[in-house]
Amino acid sequence: MTERVVVAYSGGLDTSVTIGWLAERTGAEVVAVVVDVGQGGEDLDVIRRRAVDCGAVAAEVVDARDEFAAEYCLPAIRANAGYLDRYPLVSALSSPLVVKHLVAAARAHGGTVVSHGRTGTGNDLARFEVALAALAPDLTVVAPARDVAWTRDQAVAFAEEKGLPIDTSARAPYPIDQNLWGRAVEAGFLADSWRGPVEELYAHTADPTLERDADEVVITFDAGYPVAIDGETVTPYQAILELNRRAGAQGVGRLDLVEDRLVGIKTREVYEAPGAITLITAHQELEAITIERDLARFKRGVDQRWAELVHDGLWFAPLRTALDAFVDETQRHVTGEVRVNLHGGRATVTGRRSEAGRFDVGSATYDTGDGVDQSFAKGFVQLWGLPSKLSAARDARLGGVRS
Amino acid sequence: MTERVVVAYSGGLDTSVTIGWLAERTGAEVVAVVVDVGQGGEDLDVIRRRAVDCGAVAAEVVDARDEFAAEYCLPAIRANAGYLDRYPLVSALSSPLVVKHLVAAARAHGGTVVSHGRTGTGNDLARFEVALAALAPDLTVVAPARDVAWTRDQAVAFAEEKGLPIDTSARAPYPIDQNLWGRAVEAGFLADSWRGPVEELYAHTADPTLERDADEVVITFDAGYPVAIDGETVTPYQAILELNRRAGAQGVGRLDLVEDRLVGIKTREVYEAPGAITLITAHQELEAITIERDLARFKRGVDQRWAELVHDGLWFAPLRTALDAFVDETQRHVTGEVRVNLHGGRATVTGRRSEAGRFDVGSATYDTGDGVDQSFAKGFVQLWGLPSKLSAARDARLGGVRS
Amino acid sequence: MTERVVVAYSGGLDTSVTIGWLAERTGAEVVAVVVDVGQGGEDLDVIRRRAVDCGAVAAEVVDARDEFAAEYCLPAIRANAGYLDRYPLVSALSSPLVVKHLVAAARAHGGTVVSHGRTGTGNDLARFEVALAALAPDLTVVAPARDVAWTRDQAVAFAEEKGLPIDTSARAPYPIDQNLWGRAVEAGFLADSWRGPVEELYAHTADPTLERDADEVVITFDAGYPVAIDGETVTPYQAILELNRRAGAQGVGRLDLVEDRLVGIKTREVYEAPGAITLITAHQELEAITIERDLARFKRGVDQRWAELVHDGLWFAPLRTALDAFVDETQRHVTGEVRVNLHGGRATVTGRRSEAGRFDVGSATYDTGDGVDQSFAKGFVQLWGLPSKLSAARDARLGGVRS
Amino acid sequence: MTERVVVAYSGGLDTSVTIGWLAERTGAEVVAVVVDVGQGGEDLDVIRRRAVDCGAVAAEVVDARDEFAAEYCLPAIRANAGYLDRYPLVSALSSPLVVKHLVAAARAHGGTVVSHGRTGTGNDLARFEVALAALAPDLTVVAPARDVAWTRDQAVAFAEEKGLPIDTSARAPYPIDQNLWGRAVEAGFLADSWRGPVEELYAHTADPTLERDADEVVITFDAGYPVAIDGETVTPYQAILELNRRAGAQGVGRLDLVEDRLVGIKTREVYEAPGAITLITAHQELEAITIERDLARFKRGVDQRWAELVHDGLWFAPLRTALDAFVDETQRHVTGEVRVNLHGGRATVTGRRSEAGRFDVGSATYDTGDGVDQSFAKGFVQLWGLPSKLSAARDARLGGVRS
Repeated sequence: MTERVVVAYSGGLDTSVTIGWLAERTGAEVVAVVVDVGQGGEDLDVIRRRAVDCGAVAAEVVDARDEFAAEYCLPAIRANAGYLDRYPLVSALSSPLVVKHLVAAARAHGGTVVSHGRTGTGNDLARFEVALAALAPDLTVVAPARDVAWTRDQAVAFAEEKGLPIDTSARAPYPIDQNLWGRAVEAGFLADSWRGPVEELYAHTADPTLERDADEVVITFDAGYPVAIDGETVTPYQAILELNRRAGAQGVGRLDLVEDRLVGIKTREVYEAPGAITLITAHQELEAITIERDLARFKRGVDQRWAELVHDGLWFAPLRTALDAFVDETQRHVTGEVRVNLHGGRATVTGRRSEAGRFDVGSATYDTGDGVDQSFAKGFVQLWGLPSKLSAARDARLGGVRS
Repeated sequence: MTERVVVAYSGGLDTSVTIGWLAERTGAEVVAVVVDVGQGGEDLDVIRRRAVDCGAVAAEVVDARDEFAAEYCLPAIRANAGYLDRYPLVSALSSPLVVKHLVAAARAHGGTVVSHGRTGTGNDLARFEVALAALAPDLTVVAPARDVAWTRDQAVAFAEEKGLPIDTSARAPYPIDQNLWGRAVEAGFLADSWRGPVEELYAHTADPTLERDADEVVITFDAGYPVAIDGETVTPYQAILELNRRAGAQGVGRLDLVEDRLVGIKTREVYEAPGAITLITAHQELEAITIERDLARFKRGVDQRWAELVHDGLWFAPLRTALDAFVDETQRHVTGEVRVNLHGGRATVTGRRSEAGRFDVGSATYDTGDGVDQSFAKGFVQLWGLPSKLSAARDARLGGVRS
Repeated sequence: MTERVVVAYSGGLDTSVTIGWLAERTGAEVVAVVVDVGQGGEDLDVIRRRAVDCGAVAAEVVDARDEFAAEYCLPAIRANAGYLDRYPLVSALSSPLVVKHLVAAARAHGGTVVSHGRTGTGNDLARFEVALAALAPDLTVVAPARDVAWTRDQAVAFAEEKGLPIDTSARAPYPIDQNLWGRAVEAGFLADSWRGPVEELYAHTADPTLERDADEVVITFDAGYPVAIDGETVTPYQAILELNRRAGAQGVGRLDLVEDRLVGIKTREVYEAPGAITLITAHQELEAITIERDLARFKRGVDQRWAELVHDGLWFAPLRTALDAFVDETQRHVTGEVRVNLHGGRATVTGRRSEAGRFDVGSATYDTGDGVDQSFAKGFVQLWGLPSKLSAARDARLGGVRS
Repeated sequence: MTERVVVAYSGGLDTSVTIGWLAERTGAEVVAVVVDVGQGGEDLDVIRRRAVDCGAVAAEVVDARDEFAAEYCLPAIRANAGYLDRYPLVSALSSPLVVKHLVAAARAHGGTVVSHGRTGTGNDLARFEVALAALAPDLTVVAPARDVAWTRDQAVAFAEEKGLPIDTSARAPYPIDQNLWGRAVEAGFLADSWRGPVEELYAHTADPTLERDADEVVITFDAGYPVAIDGETVTPYQAILELNRRAGAQGVGRLDLVEDRLVGIKTREVYEAPGAITLITAHQELEAITIERDLARFKRGVDQRWAELVHDGLWFAPLRTALDAFVDETQRHVTGEVRVNLHGGRATVTGRRSEAGRFDVGSATYDTGDGVDQSFAKGFVQLWGLPSKLSAARDARLGGVRS
């Protein structure tokens, strides 16, 4: 029986050549899967048909946008991933989901081999293959782009020789990675870390220096999840999409960073993540009024480790699940509203309120004192225990249970 | 022999009343010390003379600006204190130095008692008295503003009754704390965390929304210390002063935060720290190209703990000294230049370069590969993901659920 | 209406005097509550009647032994609290439970005031009052032993004057604190940290140097909880009691430590915790074969913070609850058996097995290889060491010194 | 010119075959280097001559025992490495030093290639090659045992075929790794984690259950370094050697562990480290009386990370150097004497004293109070600042400098 190879297909040169190469060189039947994680760009049905034209015996599109928003982006908000840590998790966040659907397709189509177009030294290769090893250790991986070590010229030559339906002249000027959560560009000239980014690198954000009116948005959170924008209930996908649009229009969310690759080298990348950065900024401010101090301090380290793990391709590590259990518990009272002013490239919180938070924002004014006995007469113990006391009082008032 | 009380004098209502009250009620000789940590405002010689007019037998001004910049602000830059942690350390950073000079004055003037105008529930009281306990456990502290628990009206009444040379009508609308490193305002109406700050709260930064041309600055660091601005050698004091001016003119450095007080309550504060935020932003980016990944990850936790300790008034804790030893070692190669674009309230790094840093920013471009052998990747990924793979296989076997 | 004061009563001098003093000096009706957390010693019904004889209008015994074992000691096992951190949590672990029942009694008896016999500088005072503040901020606390600052002689004098039914001559030679989980002794002569402990300090452990046959015990864990001993199903209370007996008979569980008090001083204490140390030792070894490496490393920090919080009297802090959520998630597969050899003061694990754990203990023998492809190693090592290699090359180039 | 290969030679089968194989197959001149890190066993001059008999053109022995003790083992004591973390660092600690001398020999002998006998999946391969990459990135590594993937039978066949002077019949029953700091055995039957270790696995420790008299030793530390034993000044090497002997004679220092390999699998190992465990136990107790609480808590995490890094083969990582800077600073006052009772497999601290430590071990006795005002009248600030105050007072008394 002919072997079936299931390929994660993007529609671009590398994965198109992968399909052609696998069909010709291995004699296997190639099935292409396009996973929609909000990457936008070309129509996905066009991409699906291109896979067939490149030689796939079957091709399908999986709409994973809501799942991506709810199961992957929302935990990133609760863990404040990417802003404090300054690394927006773009494909780090979608890779495990893409692999999940790739494996599902392999099961559905009787595939025993899976393939992708990732090359050898990027973070994405590790993320992809580690996820595959976790989810489907029985499947074999072939990665011609890595193992044959194609250069772009060789890929173009193969595509032209075989007449693959790719416009090899219309190459993107830079390698780009994008999904609902963000967009990353790795331009060759940026390898000179002294050169500044140029405007043409950006696609999801307007020039922040252009004059325009500010936009003010109120985001409602329930237990750390965004649930409404300006009072309108939204799904997780809608929340991110809407804030990508509104914050992007104000030039919010550009980042120009030198970051550490998993394999130990540093690379320069330019990011756009308007919705992600707006949501995380708002979420942090709501945490500031609802989370007790010692908990907030420890959560900083948990958040950092969460982002490191996901960045490092270890979404399926047991540690990630345990960190999520910690974070879940911390979010019980992260409920309330945050008002964010979007303007001139900045997302500035100008107001935040919460039933849970009011409990200890004292009226610390000059004239009236702030309700804490100035003489410290009740002594050390009263103050030492105050955070616990206030938390318990809040629980009693709001119905939280603390054993 | 008459007892001598040495008072940390600011020139304001509280400390003026403190001088008068001490002289009258205790019969002690009061010596006033004004420590210049770059707080600006009134001429310090005027303040010095006012202390005498309030009843001090002696008054002196200590110029501690260079010391403050070099010994307190520079370590804060190296530890990235205040930006990532979002709490600019304003008086937290100057309190230990003010106390150091207060103690020196007590020794010089034969004082056995020291005094200050801090009230009972602020962080500053703890910072002040903890520092005093560390530096001069033999000195007695009297703090009438805390112990008598004056309200503002009572202080005004005392000042008027005694004819103290204070313009009690010209009160500052808000309690303000400021020094070279930053400025903090705690306005009564801000206790409503939903209300936005108003423009009149700000004094060191221009409105970021006003149109103006961008300013570009190149900051040179040597081992983590800023040593030149636009190629001109500067002292630490000059570096901060100059960047306060230039970044402040672009509206950079405003922060509106709810923070945790040492005593366990939360308060709302508005900060301005244009120089601090510009310097820390630039320093972080230089670290990003010069510090190895594992070191950078661990340093995040060290930086956080450093800021917590200083915020908590524990400058003199042995842990702070040990953290500084760690940070010192990390800064050996944090040498190079950072170009920062100041505009519209944003300090954006657009370039960074370092002899030490070029070492591993690979030319990670698509066409040419990046100099890391692609064949290494396969082995790395297999072993990197092995624990996740084994864990997932166990979960599959034993029925554990992992999303 | 007469006020009712509910007193946590131990039967000893301090709390007996507290009952008498409260009844006489305040005119309140005193209700005594004895909470049984496995402290042993006198018959609790005798103690209950003594409370009445000292002047209480009512007295009750609450049997909280099973609750203490299940809800307080078991979480300590899962967090490996006390062994790695070297501080057995004796009264730190029972104080929150005692307070919980004290509050329940106050509610049941219409008490508006609660009282205890703790003195002013021990950890227990803070633990007690912080827990009270968390659970019942409306109740008033009176603590005559702290506020009046009785010395022992004064307490004896009051007891004799009032004819309280306490044998004031039969004083314990040392202050002792004990419950199911352990026993702590703080002997005066131990304040000289150079003096060794003497045999008479110990009550729950035999002299480990005496010759006897070893005892071997197999402990079965289910999700981190001990559920059987030598194949016999046990309750949490039975597990601890049985191991206290068997490990104690072998001299296991003695500790002689200098520890940090909450108030910042250090004290010397001698502990006995045979069951606790045996259970934690066994639990750690089962974790070693069932928990993935990165998770195990991070859990070390979580375990440490858990023990710090409980030691510091912050059982009711929200951070403790969030840490517990993390720990819970880690224990899903900590299921299996551990064989422990108890002998000569040592609890030595000699075997451990688990369905969950077998998964990756490779047969790493010399002759046969261990099932990991040796060819992966080259790629892994090259990339694993790349950052160190690049750093060292930089140091060589720039003259940095690294030994 | 003939290429020169410098081989790290142990005298055993694998490295002997490596010499023969390299000489025959590559035509290179082989130089053998034996580094003495206290591994004991055969006479090193015999081993040196065997290298020549196997075909080496030159062979030398480097006595690195004092260097190993002073530069590698002592930092491990200060970082409490291996006891709290339960992984004694045996070859992890000596590998970087062996590589250092291997590189020095390559430079001295004009070698351009280095070689070793490590196989592919052990921790030691990574430790060795990462160290080489850091110290001598220009040298090529050949590792026939890894690359050719010899089994033991193949190695024996080669040795017999070529007449190498190895007694291939007298194989060690288990792979053993040992140096001054400890000894590790990885017996095949131990892969069954339920089986207990057998007495014959141990060589450096006596059976702890045999009856004998206790041995009491007083260890003097200066700034965290052991400097005298029972009052006799010792070098670092002498300290470890002497305590290996005396603690080993009492059965102290056996460990039976399942540990995580660098490559992600778990293995069972049996360790003996009598001197290491005695020294670390004593050092920890001296820290307990000399290190301030917050510092002690943070140092726990630093110590753990230090051991992880060294275990993971990253001795030359910049993070290790920075952690050492932290640790150095913490040890300034870890000076004093510790009395340890060695008996029955246990190293029990029975006394500790220090000029630095006496400062805050209060006389916390029942009758007299403990010198802290019971009423907490001086309030929260006094207590919050007490650790800093005591540290500063100690510094003033002992002449420490704290800026």
